[in-house]
Amino acid sequence: MEIRSQVLMVECADRPGMVHGITGVLLRAGVNIISNHEFVDLENGRFYMRTAFEGPSDPAALCLGVQAALPEGAAVSLHPPVPKRLVVLASREHHCLADLLVRNAYSELGAEIVAVVSNHDHLRSLAEKFGVPFHFAPHEGMSREDHDASVARIVASLGPDYLVLAKYMRLLGPAFVAAWPRRIINIHHSFLPAFTGARPYKQAFVRGVKVIGATAHFVTEQIDDGPIIVQQVIPVGHSHTAHDLAQAGRDVERAVLARALKLVLENRVFLCGNRTIIFD
Amino acid sequence: MEIRSQVLMVECADRPGMVHGITGVLLRAGVNIISNHEFVDLENGRFYMRTAFEGPSDPAALCLGVQAALPEGAAVSLHPPVPKRLVVLASREHHCLADLLVRNAYSELGAEIVAVVSNHDHLRSLAEKFGVPFHFAPHEGMSREDHDASVARIVASLGPDYLVLAKYMRLLGPAFVAAWPRRIINIHHSFLPAFTGARPYKQAFVRGVKVIGATAHFVTEQIDDGPIIVQQVIPVGHSHTAHDLAQAGRDVERAVLARALKLVLENRVFLCGNRTIIFD
Amino acid sequence: MEIRSQVLMVECADRPGMVHGITGVLLRAGVNIISNHEFVDLENGRFYMRTAFEGPSDPAALCLGVQAALPEGAAVSLHPPVPKRLVVLASREHHCLADLLVRNAYSELGAEIVAVVSNHDHLRSLAEKFGVPFHFAPHEGMSREDHDASVARIVASLGPDYLVLAKYMRLLGPAFVAAWPRRIINIHHSFLPAFTGARPYKQAFVRGVKVIGATAHFVTEQIDDGPIIVQQVIPVGHSHTAHDLAQAGRDVERAVLARALKLVLENRVFLCGNRTIIFD
Amino acid sequence: MEIRSQVLMVECADRPGMVHGITGVLLRAGVNIISNHEFVDLENGRFYMRTAFEGPSDPAALCLGVQAALPEGAAVSLHPPVPKRLVVLASREHHCLADLLVRNAYSELGAEIVAVVSNHDHLRSLAEKFGVPFHFAPHEGMSREDHDASVARIVASLGPDYLVLAKYMRLLGPAFVAAWPRRIINIHHSFLPAFTGARPYKQAFVRGVKVIGATAHFVTEQIDDGPIIVQQVIPVGHSHTAHDLAQAGRDVERAVLARALKLVLENRVFLCGNRTIIFD
Repeated sequence: MEIRSQVLMVECADRPGMVHGITGVLLRAGVNIISNHEFVDLENGRFYMRTAFEGPSDPAALCLGVQAALPEGAAVSLHPPVPKRLVVLASREHHCLADLLVRNAYSELGAEIVAVVSNHDHLRSLAEKFGVPFHFAPHEGMSREDHDASVARIVASLGPDYLVLAKYMRLLGPAFVAAWPRRIINIHHSFLPAFTGARPYKQAFVRGVKVIGATAHFVTEQIDDGPIIVQQVIPVGHSHTAHDLAQAGRDVERAVLARALKLVLENRVFLCGNRTIIFD
Repeated sequence: MEIRSQVLMVECADRPGMVHGITGVLLRAGVNIISNHEFVDLENGRFYMRTAFEGPSDPAALCLGVQAALPEGAAVSLHPPVPKRLVVLASREHHCLADLLVRNAYSELGAEIVAVVSNHDHLRSLAEKFGVPFHFAPHEGMSREDHDASVARIVASLGPDYLVLAKYMRLLGPAFVAAWPRRIINIHHSFLPAFTGARPYKQAFVRGVKVIGATAHFVTEQIDDGPIIVQQVIPVGHSHTAHDLAQAGRDVERAVLARALKLVLENRVFLCGNRTIIFD
Repeated sequence: MEIRSQVLMVECADRPGMVHGITGVLLRAGVNIISNHEFVDLENGRFYMRTAFEGPSDPAALCLGVQAALPEGAAVSLHPPVPKRLVVLASREHHCLADLLVRNAYSELGAEIVAVVSNHDHLRSLAEKFGVPFHFAPHEGMSREDHDASVARIVASLGPDYLVLAKYMRLLGPAFVAAWPRRIINIHHSFLPAFTGARPYKQAFVRGVKVIGATAHFVTEQIDDGPIIVQQVIPVGHSHTAHDLAQAGRDVERAVLARALKLVLENRVFLCGNRTIIFD
Repeated sequence: MEIRSQVLMVECADRPGMVHGITGVLLRAGVNIISNHEFVDLENGRFYMRTAFEGPSDPAALCLGVQAALPEGAAVSLHPPVPKRLVVLASREHHCLADLLVRNAYSELGAEIVAVVSNHDHLRSLAEKFGVPFHFAPHEGMSREDHDASVARIVASLGPDYLVLAKYMRLLGPAFVAAWPRRIINIHHSFLPAFTGARPYKQAFVRGVKVIGATAHFVTEQIDDGPIIVQQVIPVGHSHTAHDLAQAGRDVERAVLARALKLVLENRVFLCGNRTIIFD
């Protein structure tokens, strides 16, 4: 994934003339627009716009110019073509982490994995095979709060843009989550809102569903309830045991997580309440 | 859908030699086996087998012969190549009913729709266009029990093999359901178990899901909880309103219902507790 | 499908300031923009834009205004919220036609089917069931040119916006095609470019493919080579005969055709050489 | 992927009593049948059966017994629960190889990758990271025949059960292919038979398709024409350049290759002329 263009993201109250105003600022700045996406959430009267452009520009001036063309309270951000920094949290399952490490090794993520943090020592050799620092933060004998805090200290020292929960099988407490708003991406092994909580494949088996799936979402304080970024399903049948479902599901999990990361890292994802707006 | 072969369906406790025993009976009967499917549910020790065959046979004798080769309590049924009789229940939405009527008109169902019953008079002209009798059973001013009873009387007089709820927007009470065990097939407009109950598309919109779907299932006393036959999903995005989801969902609903009916009518669906076993 | 907004479609050579210019014209006209989509084909330096808007406007003045803001040679069209007129051509297979007739009967097409024309009399009762005029144009004993001409006379008298080939199993000659450029939509029963020409399901069976599909495309003089609008596939297996493939394929064919029509009729489809640009 | 059961594969001319005969032999051998699949290719009068079973058995005696119950010319094979040996051929693209190496490292393949052979030295570090021997067989300055022969020597010394072409971008000549009949599995980056030969993503871009795909197939002398094992597609749109298609296609390629390998290695794939029969 090559990142060469800058991306302007705008969110504000809707009113007439918004696109005209923003494109006017960009035109006067002399940049070369590559693509433009807009969406108006009519229900809430919110305007969203993403513009990818190339060319010389003074970021601060550009943002100020755009801001001036918008209603008060507008959120304007400008993302330079610089890889974001990721910290991956994992537990014992390797498949999502391995997929991310391979993509990272071949510069396909549009980001840099700066470290792996885990509550088990199990995946150390996998991370180190790819030259990525591995931090073991054992949870045994610790309260959830204390363990969260120990992970939080490691993460904070790494200064990531996003945290990726690649099958991190622990609940993160409210304090942790609050420290990284809209910055934690989780892969849940079911098509939410079906089968929240533990052992979704077992639940799916018992219910006798004919499709299973995976959901990548932002983490909020409410477990398995954050804004959904990507969902995908595969067909299954009566001959699949709960174990078979889990095995088949792994391929969907890592595909969904990789896809969600690509969208987030290319600055294509906006939040609108508990829903995502995705310009793809 | 041509039906030319007979179908033998067997379900019983598992023990060694079952396939050998059953195929021995068929071999001695001189029939020509077209296809054979078996499945053992290891968890519950149950054996399931479906055999399609052609050729002259004495059905009663054949069933007795098969029964004799099986453990006590075996369920054996033989389905001749004769179209099943369907009664379709509908309310105001036309899309599933229209689809079934077209398939019926061109003999694609492998069944015959003997009548449409509805709590609204709205779809009368659609049914009559295709020469299918329409029974209007208004629910206004009636208790659910009384309305169920009035529908039940109509249905009973028609002697159907299966009832199809093609967007019938009323709950059927336990007495009704108990009278037609494993014989009522419903289409629910979500991928169960997500979004049970009313207005699933509205629920899906609020939750911000990226796929919507439909589920065809047998109706049991527990609402939206019966054994699932077919599920399918389609991708959706942030630009879909709840109304758009409902519109897009219609095509999935009728595809899923038609697929489920095909499987049931070809005698490919077994029940295993609350799960289905489907030999396709 | 409700059509309430007007749609402006613009195609021209790309240059800076295009979006700014067009939105400026719309802003000054005082209309209310519902959605905006733009795309630049970098390879050919072409700019495409679709804007849906509501509100009072003088269409002629608006188009002139937009044209004035664009480079010479720009194609500008304004589509009022008025149903387009369709003529459907069919032969003997009913499934696509029946689907369109049902959607038409319930005002779901965003268009009006003004007539069905067929080289067989086979589907007359289906069309007439839904109150749609049926024109029988037999081909027996006629050259292709003569038959084309006889169909062309009927079609011309009906003044359609688009012709839909709903399993019309005859090749249309160059003269016919040239008379309706970008106005004829065909459904081909394979995922093009695989299996062009006759009997694609038989070809698919022989090749042993594991997916089959359907393709909706604009008709050009080159058979099965026109710009693709929608493609979709379904999985198949070794137990499918060529006949089973054809049967299973029907559901995909009509879904793909309906989807393509929806996109075209909502003015979402642009042509870029032999490729389509679809703002969805 | 755990392999615990033995698999019996049978292919022969069809005649009555086949299943009865085979299951009789297994019953008398006292083994415990886990699953049974049969298929009759009516067109060619061929019978196919796969039986997975557990329990003590004398393989040679069992095969002889089964053979005796079948018509002359029957192909009978018994596959013990022992991992097959794989040699992977690759060139410069890492994604399929990396996926296989990860699965191999975590014992998910049901096989053992004994070596990687490549005409480039590019992927050496990837293979060695996972402890898999890497053989560099440069092709520069060599005729195809000579290069094939040099690869063949390496492969032969490794004694594999199957060769996997994981984006091996060279044509294998007839002599090489003939030496490994039904033993070479290739991943082709299009949904065959569309876009055979070189640069399928470029071809797909030019044709303007709305789905792209990948095909895993056995290699035969006829390029891109061997029996298809697995095919899968993903939707694409006008904003994808040929480069974007290639990038998006990678995820499908490796998913399709992994799926095909799983089926072959679990002894689920039969050949029927140029078609595969897959018991899944």
